[in-house]
Amino acid sequence: MRGPANAEEASATTPRRGSIRLGLLGCGTVGGGVLELCAANARWLEGRVGAPLEVRRVLVRDPRKERVAACDPSWITTRPEDVVDDPEIDIVVEVMGGEEAALELVERAIAAGKGVVTANKLLLAKHGPRLVDLAIARGTDLAFEGAVGGGIPIIRTLREAFASDWVERLAGIVNGTCNYVLGRMREGGLGLDEAVREAQAKGYAEADPSLDTGGHDAAHKLCVLAMLAFGARVPASALHVEGIEGIEERDHRYAERFGYVIKHLAIGRDFGDAIELRVHPTLIPKTSVLANVSGVLNAILLEGRALGPCMLYGRGAGDLPTAVSVVSDILDVGRSIVAGASGLLTRGIAMEPRPLKPQEDVETRYYLRLSAPERPGLMARIAGGLGELGVSLEQMVQPERPTAPGDPVDIVVITHVAREGNVTAALERMRTEGLFAAPPRLYRIEVS
Amino acid sequence: MRGPANAEEASATTPRRGSIRLGLLGCGTVGGGVLELCAANARWLEGRVGAPLEVRRVLVRDPRKERVAACDPSWITTRPEDVVDDPEIDIVVEVMGGEEAALELVERAIAAGKGVVTANKLLLAKHGPRLVDLAIARGTDLAFEGAVGGGIPIIRTLREAFASDWVERLAGIVNGTCNYVLGRMREGGLGLDEAVREAQAKGYAEADPSLDTGGHDAAHKLCVLAMLAFGARVPASALHVEGIEGIEERDHRYAERFGYVIKHLAIGRDFGDAIELRVHPTLIPKTSVLANVSGVLNAILLEGRALGPCMLYGRGAGDLPTAVSVVSDILDVGRSIVAGASGLLTRGIAMEPRPLKPQEDVETRYYLRLSAPERPGLMARIAGGLGELGVSLEQMVQPERPTAPGDPVDIVVITHVAREGNVTAALERMRTEGLFAAPPRLYRIEVS
Repeated sequence: MRGPANAEEASATTPRRGSIRLGLLGCGTVGGGVLELCAANARWLEGRVGAPLEVRRVLVRDPRKERVAACDPSWITTRPEDVVDDPEIDIVVEVMGGEEAALELVERAIAAGKGVVTANKLLLAKHGPRLVDLAIARGTDLAFEGAVGGGIPIIRTLREAFASDWVERLAGIVNGTCNYVLGRMREGGLGLDEAVREAQAKGYAEADPSLDTGGHDAAHKLCVLAMLAFGARVPASALHVEGIEGIEERDHRYAERFGYVIKHLAIGRDFGDAIELRVHPTLIPKTSVLANVSGVLNAILLEGRALGPCMLYGRGAGDLPTAVSVVSDILDVGRSIVAGASGLLTRGIAMEPRPLKPQEDVETRYYLRLSAPERPGLMARIAGGLGELGVSLEQMVQPERPTAPGDPVDIVVITHVAREGNVTAALERMRTEGLFAAPPRLYRIEVS
Repeated sequence: MRGPANAEEASATTPRRGSIRLGLLGCGTVGGGVLELCAANARWLEGRVGAPLEVRRVLVRDPRKERVAACDPSWITTRPEDVVDDPEIDIVVEVMGGEEAALELVERAIAAGKGVVTANKLLLAKHGPRLVDLAIARGTDLAFEGAVGGGIPIIRTLREAFASDWVERLAGIVNGTCNYVLGRMREGGLGLDEAVREAQAKGYAEADPSLDTGGHDAAHKLCVLAMLAFGARVPASALHVEGIEGIEERDHRYAERFGYVIKHLAIGRDFGDAIELRVHPTLIPKTSVLANVSGVLNAILLEGRALGPCMLYGRGAGDLPTAVSVVSDILDVGRSIVAGASGLLTRGIAMEPRPLKPQEDVETRYYLRLSAPERPGLMARIAGGLGELGVSLEQMVQPERPTAPGDPVDIVVITHVAREGNVTAALERMRTEGLFAAPPRLYRIEVS
């Protein structure tokens, strides 16, 4: 697809070696896309790497299945050892997905000193720090641009562009399913279940959507991002994670009234002595750049101490974007091998134990939706209950009239910055006093 | 600023060399920032490069001037040859700005086989292709992330993330002054001159703002982007360039009425057989991501054939963001040198002669603001005049009543996609027939 590259000049000036030999684990839509991109851009990639890329082996489960034209039948094998144990293979490209089998093969490839490129998010989220450690110890490279954010070059931006900066904050729309569902609720007036069913019908949500709508997929991605942005070695299970299941259509209407939209965000902050990592529905101003990221698109906002804000936006998933990211990693790892400098990319990921701030110590602003039977002095009672714990209010409204006198009404509160533990304690105290007709809802507000 | 890096492990596994020795040309705010970032992140950068970075020389004009604490007085020199002719210097960092002197020193550094990092936009826009050719021929690297888009990692994204993709289109808000002025006109209801004066007062516009408001700065940046995105060797003088000077406050009101905002965009398209490069005020939908890039921020939207849309957003200018970009380039170039693979980064910029589509052959949608004395049949006459040349209309409105009967009124036309030559020919024909009370205004519409 690219125009003619300077392959001849390349060969003339870089240390000569035969070729960079690739072994693929898997040949589904991403793997097939990788083979096609490598074939279509062969001369261009050769110029960039300093040696031709040569596919040696492609591991598949079913050798009789039809493959893309770029897949030479002679490469096909069903034996993993033909890829990970072949000393002639320089880079193992893991595009098989899943956890156990992929983990074992990636570990074997690293142990054999091969460069590894993977697009496996689950693998990275669960075993990323350990695999990075293994690669650093073995002096080889582990690259995974395709595993997070699909075609968004977030990994190399964190690794390269922020090399001399300090990421103070990140906030990302990293789950396309949640973003689609919230968008349809807000713009189409759909209920949550209806929006999820629509996402399923369009192929944007799984039959069991809970990994997405429960926030766990976003938490996995936040762990990988935190590894690069904050050098943090944090398991997904340690994060505060909320999904979008509790959001109701009226929350969108109320948020709109205050100039906000509700987005499902993965948020990280670095305070130096501790970091904050949390995944939850968040109110952000309608005019912020993240507010206008629509449909299944993803976006990640980074705040560097020196760079200031930097946002990357694009397709967070999809076979072709992921294949492009995998090829960009093959190029990086291949270039390191040609240069005799394997391991240099991965060594940049310097991880340390980073204490995680407890969620009750988080300080931000809050949107509270409280349901209580209407009576004189109700608003004063709520304001007083929050004030007792030092939570001060920016706004407090009763957006709708009750159906009949004494019926429960919604009271919506927007707080100033407060410690989360104080907000939840105040709500709990009022709840035990029988003030509420339904459990209070709390969503956080991010201002920038 | 970064936490402890794995500098010791780095030294153990990479080919051992003394250090990567830097010479700076200039020590203003960007240069000072580079020295400070290098000092503050020394161990971290050493781990990433595979060797320590060591500053040898800093060229300044006035040796008595106070410098940042990170600048050792013993480095200071006023003789350029101490930097570019010293065989012990590996990388020359050009942060002096200007054109002639910088060009001569960068050429000498490249000729001496040194890696060159520059943040000089003017130099790149005017001499980029030739300097890239020189670097490729000499087998050394020329890196310039800091020269375009300040802290936005657009150069490395085009070079690395899109390595196996094809950029079909780019659209960028690349001039902060124009973006600020248009934003204040739209949101603050200011006139153009008033908004420019405000920008000057805030330090966002030069005393002579015409390089920015005339679109020439954006055209320079588009040339550099086109070199990487389309492999195009195109002088800025060949581009179709319009500034924001003709925009009136009512254009913002009319655009708003149709659901658009007006942004000053640099636009590039690749049609395979030809490319399109143009800089002009553009109407884009209010809900598009570029529409919400406010103030002096910049954003560049890339559309890859495989990757789909990818947007990068951040501070397009500023000393600190630029310094971070310069250091990220020093890291890349230094790593290549340590690996014995100098020239590999730059060789990826494969330029070819690319024919530029004449502006009259551009096909897009148009916003036309026409002023004509009100009379029966006026709208029919305009619709007919456009229709005669095959330009079909989507909407046509007279947004305001005339002050007195027979006074000129504004007629605003939104066309369907049309060939620009036909639109301008139709307008010219109506103009010569004396239909208009003032020269017609034409602005282009981009839908995505």
